[in-house]
Amino acid sequence: MDDDGGVLAERHSERGMATVAAGGFADVLEQELAGLDAPPSLPAVICGMAGARQGWREVPYLDLPARLDNLARGALAIDGAARPVYILPGLAQSSPEAPDVMRGEETQIAGAASVAAATAETFCLPGTHSKWATVSDGAVTGFSTYLTGEMFALLCEHSILRHSVGSSRQVAADNPVFLDRLRDTLASPDVLLSRLFSIRAAGLLAGLSQTDAAAALSGHLIGAEIAAVQARLAGDGSTVVLVASGAIVPLYEAAMNAADLPYRLVDAETAVRAGLLDAARTLLAPKG
Amino acid sequence: MDDDGGVLAERHSERGMATVAAGGFADVLEQELAGLDAPPSLPAVICGMAGARQGWREVPYLDLPARLDNLARGALAIDGAARPVYILPGLAQSSPEAPDVMRGEETQIAGAASVAAATAETFCLPGTHSKWATVSDGAVTGFSTYLTGEMFALLCEHSILRHSVGSSRQVAADNPVFLDRLRDTLASPDVLLSRLFSIRAAGLLAGLSQTDAAAALSGHLIGAEIAAVQARLAGDGSTVVLVASGAIVPLYEAAMNAADLPYRLVDAETAVRAGLLDAARTLLAPKG
Repeated sequence: MDDDGGVLAERHSERGMATVAAGGFADVLEQELAGLDAPPSLPAVICGMAGARQGWREVPYLDLPARLDNLARGALAIDGAARPVYILPGLAQSSPEAPDVMRGEETQIAGAASVAAATAETFCLPGTHSKWATVSDGAVTGFSTYLTGEMFALLCEHSILRHSVGSSRQVAADNPVFLDRLRDTLASPDVLLSRLFSIRAAGLLAGLSQTDAAAALSGHLIGAEIAAVQARLAGDGSTVVLVASGAIVPLYEAAMNAADLPYRLVDAETAVRAGLLDAARTLLAPKG
Repeated sequence: MDDDGGVLAERHSERGMATVAAGGFADVLEQELAGLDAPPSLPAVICGMAGARQGWREVPYLDLPARLDNLARGALAIDGAARPVYILPGLAQSSPEAPDVMRGEETQIAGAASVAAATAETFCLPGTHSKWATVSDGAVTGFSTYLTGEMFALLCEHSILRHSVGSSRQVAADNPVFLDRLRDTLASPDVLLSRLFSIRAAGLLAGLSQTDAAAALSGHLIGAEIAAVQARLAGDGSTVVLVASGAIVPLYEAAMNAADLPYRLVDAETAVRAGLLDAARTLLAPKG
């Protein structure tokens, strides 16, 4: 990115904490940056699992409340890298009742808050581990993680439901089965474990198709997430900032609508770039 | 078993629908019976997944309401087997809102109803796919399946929680972590997807042990099952018949107590033998 936040070049890769061997992170970064023709002196600012214990270097979590305009205060510089490299911290909520952690989403939230000019809102970042965060006076004051996306993948790949969904993974937000199951779980979130089995039974008894079985599963899981959050929102009609990109967007938009939750969408890619750029400005500012 | 229900010899094996190849069931049965020195003319009565589509021979489900004293009416005899072999039917609940199926548990319920002299009760059969059935006037009138045990195994083996639980699978019913998480989910069943992630976070932030992580997971899942059922029980104080054996018994007893659900325990092995013997008496009675 240039100093004004313009994107000069971009590249996506699946090489992250789960697949890169210890000690291999510096090489992966240089290989990816070489693919962008990035100058050797260009600094790199990183968020996410690179800062986890099994990542490049463990960066201690920031405790709550955590100000969004200065995540960089907890960043660590990597010694001996080929270029200036900084890894941003994650956030930890150490309440005994609801311990929780995030790495990467804090940077997306900071960027989304900046993009949406939101200083006091609820943020929803759906995905493998969906995060819902409360921001007050420009600081994250609490958050919860829902295993929604991981549960979808687990059940599709490894459970009795694998026979029901086959290789279907794509869910259309206007599929009536998705919407019916979503509304059903919004109304009765506590029977999730039973509704999941009903997908198998509907396949056996009523010939539910694989596409519809995947839609039903997605509807139940997203419905359970939204129902749990909705029960805990202030109910003051404030707008949820939905930070998402890609195929998940219409599914969560449908869920917000079904639950009567007002929301506005911020593209997750835009958000993370804005958050990283903000951190870079702090980290790279001439020392006074 | 002898004609009076006495056990002459018994043998357990893991060889079932998931591992036996099509066409191989007859050989497996004869191998197991040879290990018991069973006479070649001794009839065999079978319940469970042998009657599924991927089993030995598909036996159509009985629809609800299904009388427990005559499951044998839906049994199929296997042609050309080395001895008389009968496979009992499962049950199907074809309501569009809650389609459900069982194979094997109907025989346990029939046996447990006979052992417990219960003709109108709620039956709980915990396990991989926990079943809760309502019996009225000696017939199953409705049931629900909860993915509780399968979810425990899936999350332990394949999810982010595998780092938290390690190889721990045994849960002690008097572990305070199990009881705390059980009570927490009984009170707030709708946040299950979030509570699961909190186990991971408690490991990272508070050093939750692997044993306690497995206990927490079990507490949340069993708690979610019991909470869902409890919300739907008549609340008339009638006794739940808990049909279970082995390590799961103290966990469900603790859950019943935490939820103030009166229950009585029937050993699941005793129940299935009683159900099979009852079916055998019908199937093998002299005709005419």
